[in-house]
Amino acid sequence: MPVYKLHYFNVTGLGEPIRFLFHYGGIEFEDIRYNSEDWPEIKKNMPFGQMPVLEVDGKKIVQSGAICRYLGKLVGLAGDNDFESMQIESVLDSFNDLRLKISAALYEENKEIQAAKRKTLVDETLPYYLGKLDEIAAENDGHLALKKLTWADLYIAAFQKYLNYAMKGDFDSFEGYPNLQKVVCNSLANEKIKKYVESRPETIC
Amino acid sequence: MPVYKLHYFNVTGLGEPIRFLFHYGGIEFEDIRYNSEDWPEIKKNMPFGQMPVLEVDGKKIVQSGAICRYLGKLVGLAGDNDFESMQIESVLDSFNDLRLKISAALYEENKEIQAAKRKTLVDETLPYYLGKLDEIAAENDGHLALKKLTWADLYIAAFQKYLNYAMKGDFDSFEGYPNLQKVVCNSLANEKIKKYVESRPETIC
Repeated sequence: MPVYKLHYFNVTGLGEPIRFLFHYGGIEFEDIRYNSEDWPEIKKNMPFGQMPVLEVDGKKIVQSGAICRYLGKLVGLAGDNDFESMQIESVLDSFNDLRLKISAALYEENKEIQAAKRKTLVDETLPYYLGKLDEIAAENDGHLALKKLTWADLYIAAFQKYLNYAMKGDFDSFEGYPNLQKVVCNSLANEKIKKYVESRPETIC
Repeated sequence: MPVYKLHYFNVTGLGEPIRFLFHYGGIEFEDIRYNSEDWPEIKKNMPFGQMPVLEVDGKKIVQSGAICRYLGKLVGLAGDNDFESMQIESVLDSFNDLRLKISAALYEENKEIQAAKRKTLVDETLPYYLGKLDEIAAENDGHLALKKLTWADLYIAAFQKYLNYAMKGDFDSFEGYPNLQKVVCNSLANEKIKKYVESRPETIC
């Protein structure tokens, strides 16, 4: 097995789905968590100046999506063939479209524009995406694809804490979306995930 | 072989990498191109109200990234194993970060904000990303990963026309980035791709 090192901040965010997948698979990895004051120095050594970065035997790989898809396959949660993998990725990439719209509002510097973006998000975007995803989860028996646990389920379960933080006041753990709540519950019920969540560092987001 | 239908607008954009991959692989598919006036009606039948959509034996799959990764595997351009696939995806996802920033500027409705976004794009973002990608292409002998042709190469070759359109005046076919130009040339030199490009419908973008 290669030596894996995950470089990320001491928050859940885009690192947490990766951590979930390592823990689910019982795969050893170094969970390196930087403080934001160290970031300007660290940034210089990261491809495209970003994290998360997965180091595999010294080779640095950037992009959380690419990393999660790789780990999903490694731990046996990426379907039985490429067509199944595509179906998982299709749903997760749609969730990521929502995530990017949330980030665009969260990191908007102009307060007036931020408020407008937030309003569109809460009134339209969030209900649209979560409604569609909830339907998909209903059709798939409490999973995001293939009617069984896949890495996409673990991804949104891992990301829920960050969504609660980013959308606070307007989003609370997929409330109102019972099938998505099932996806999260099914994922968090896994013994290895449960053990990790109980022992992970306390973080604000 | 399944029956493939690609639903997209009559432009290059996010549909063109998919078309390139089908043509590269010599895989039959129906290349359905909608006019924008038909879109409001068509939109209702598309998952998440978006295109491109790949229909595989009647099942509609959304998200160009998921579709390209699937087709990349199907036509043998996704590396020899999952670790190689991840390296290809890592580079392409970084290119897509750039693409999203370009779209954010292109579709910004407020003219003043659009001008500011465009300035940041031209002065900072574009040179940063294209510079990094050019270095990667230099290290990989005129390819984006693995020192050989992968679906990521075909992707950016297919997307060049849209970049020229979106960034007109500030970007011209990767000028100033000789290694990225090599990536595009290597891809367009393929006989099947060449034949498709010569015979594809004339479109503005």
